[in-house]
Amino acid sequence: MLVNHEQYRTIWPNFEHAQPCVEIIDQTKLPHVFEVASLTTLAQMIVAIKTMQVRGAPLIGAAAAYGIALSTLDSCADRHLQQSAEQLIASRPTAVNLRWAVQRMLSALLRLPDAQRQSAAWAEAALICDEDVQLNQAIGKHGLTLIHAQHQQKARTINILTHCNAGWLATVDFGTALAPIYAAHNAGIHVHVWVGETRPRNQGASLTAWELGQHGVPHTVISDNAGGHLMQQGQVDMVIVGADRVTAAGDVCNKIGTYLKALAAFDSVALGHHVPFYAAVPSPTIDWNIEDGVKSIEIEERDAEELSWMSGKLSDGTIASVNILPHGTQVANPAFDVTPARLVTGIITERGVFTPQQLRTMQR
Amino acid sequence: MLVNHEQYRTIWPNFEHAQPCVEIIDQTKLPHVFEVASLTTLAQMIVAIKTMQVRGAPLIGAAAAYGIALSTLDSCADRHLQQSAEQLIASRPTAVNLRWAVQRMLSALLRLPDAQRQSAAWAEAALICDEDVQLNQAIGKHGLTLIHAQHQQKARTINILTHCNAGWLATVDFGTALAPIYAAHNAGIHVHVWVGETRPRNQGASLTAWELGQHGVPHTVISDNAGGHLMQQGQVDMVIVGADRVTAAGDVCNKIGTYLKALAAFDSVALGHHVPFYAAVPSPTIDWNIEDGVKSIEIEERDAEELSWMSGKLSDGTIASVNILPHGTQVANPAFDVTPARLVTGIITERGVFTPQQLRTMQR
Repeated sequence: MLVNHEQYRTIWPNFEHAQPCVEIIDQTKLPHVFEVASLTTLAQMIVAIKTMQVRGAPLIGAAAAYGIALSTLDSCADRHLQQSAEQLIASRPTAVNLRWAVQRMLSALLRLPDAQRQSAAWAEAALICDEDVQLNQAIGKHGLTLIHAQHQQKARTINILTHCNAGWLATVDFGTALAPIYAAHNAGIHVHVWVGETRPRNQGASLTAWELGQHGVPHTVISDNAGGHLMQQGQVDMVIVGADRVTAAGDVCNKIGTYLKALAAFDSVALGHHVPFYAAVPSPTIDWNIEDGVKSIEIEERDAEELSWMSGKLSDGTIASVNILPHGTQVANPAFDVTPARLVTGIITERGVFTPQQLRTMQR
Repeated sequence: MLVNHEQYRTIWPNFEHAQPCVEIIDQTKLPHVFEVASLTTLAQMIVAIKTMQVRGAPLIGAAAAYGIALSTLDSCADRHLQQSAEQLIASRPTAVNLRWAVQRMLSALLRLPDAQRQSAAWAEAALICDEDVQLNQAIGKHGLTLIHAQHQQKARTINILTHCNAGWLATVDFGTALAPIYAAHNAGIHVHVWVGETRPRNQGASLTAWELGQHGVPHTVISDNAGGHLMQQGQVDMVIVGADRVTAAGDVCNKIGTYLKALAAFDSVALGHHVPFYAAVPSPTIDWNIEDGVKSIEIEERDAEELSWMSGKLSDGTIASVNILPHGTQVANPAFDVTPARLVTGIITERGVFTPQQLRTMQR
């Protein structure tokens, strides 16, 4: 997508110097500073993953793949590559995509003679990135049909509410929830995005608002509290969010607060507005082993600091964090919630749009 | 209520010095600094109201009453008192309570000979404060029966979720939504309060958390996004909020985000949790001229700065504000929303607890 009117991905290799390196957009500096970081070693990539300079499941997978590519610069021996893989997996033990990407790299490299492994590593990492981009473009294409249908019917700007950041910054490019929005915008359909601030961590206010702004997509940031009121007043045409996990029944596990938006979208039917609620995900995000997400998915409790400390820009331009709570206040910070399938209109995937009831047919 | 183990109201007169003054808790400094400000002139009281050193409809009314008392120190002439009244009303033109209190002061004073007006002014202002305290204690008493019933049934700590600040800081003492909670706590019933951060302005995280903490009521601050998840998981026994306005049909107009909590409480029935949703208000808050709040109540749009700037304490202890949005981001900031009566279990008033359907009977 565009940054300062130039096309960017979130990660790419650079072979222009004596030593090849991997360049990333340093997301810890956004939205206030746009900075590209050059990584020349596996260790640097592991730091980038740990400190969330790169974040978002698909992007972390791509970053890990390039981490293996960087490690081949030191050695291509089996033992070295296996140790590199272990270090990468240990940097984010719960990241399924990271583990998947690392294991794919290993199986692609270990069957080759050492002399071919370095070039093969760079090629395989690039392939993983390109496949993610194609996946997201397909999600965008299928989601676009939903936005297009709304636009045909209403013949005006379509207002889409999203939560958190499931944009291109969370992937290699295009994003998941934002892919249909970028596709519509690029196709000349007038869209406007309501961006929920997304407390805590503010991924909506910082990352989603920034990437939509850079690409030129009209948007307005709102408090998470305002989404219900806007839907009640008929100012939202559809909701599109990403998801960390979707169950076989169509329950959607996503950033905390998603459930409240789904309730408001569902309630809007009682008010005659009929706001459809969609989750956009790559099909591997669907966990076929789980039916009831409310009962079965354990919700991660994250640091209190995410809520008690707020980082931003002081009036003098320096970046700082302020504590917003009374001293010693107890905090609870569940990171995700589960939206029951009964509130979900459809799941947008690279293979098409499915109602929760239709989801099972994907397995066939 | 208690602050540093001492009983406080939010406003009180002080006659210990040569010149009488009015003392207030400076709420602009909370939660990081507890500071009492002494006001000796009408002009100072007007500044206190304008800058929100005092806030909350009932407290603003009491402050305006004491503003008139302070103005009698300069003169008790009709024209002077009428001008003082006009200045006070102009300081917050939309504050119904302020206007009501000022007019009550005037009608009490103007019928007296000048010589009696000064002492009468201090007496009437004190009476307005005492009446507010009695009103809130009555709300607390009626709300206590609801908490007590839950405690009888469940024989464990009762978890109550609230939103924004309808505590004693918004009144002279006890508060509205928090009055039943203080009553239960003081009666020895184990209560725990889930305090929604309440973006923007963070009245939950700053004011509600602070006053509950000072009085020793167990509480936990959560992001506004987390309320739905907690109700879905059965970790909330009841919701009690305040209201800026309640319609004759029982629609509740309150701080933005209240509607989302009501939706989650209502949905919890589908999950077998049955979380009741109550609004606690003095009966004058009920607007008998309006039925459909969603259609009829115009929602105030407030400054974008409330969302884009966050104030708190830097690690070195100084208070500062940080901008959390990308430069030039468009913001929408509706300040209130309307919860339809169909989602409201009951309205807690000084005259008892009424279902939306029963509300009309109060008029008889």
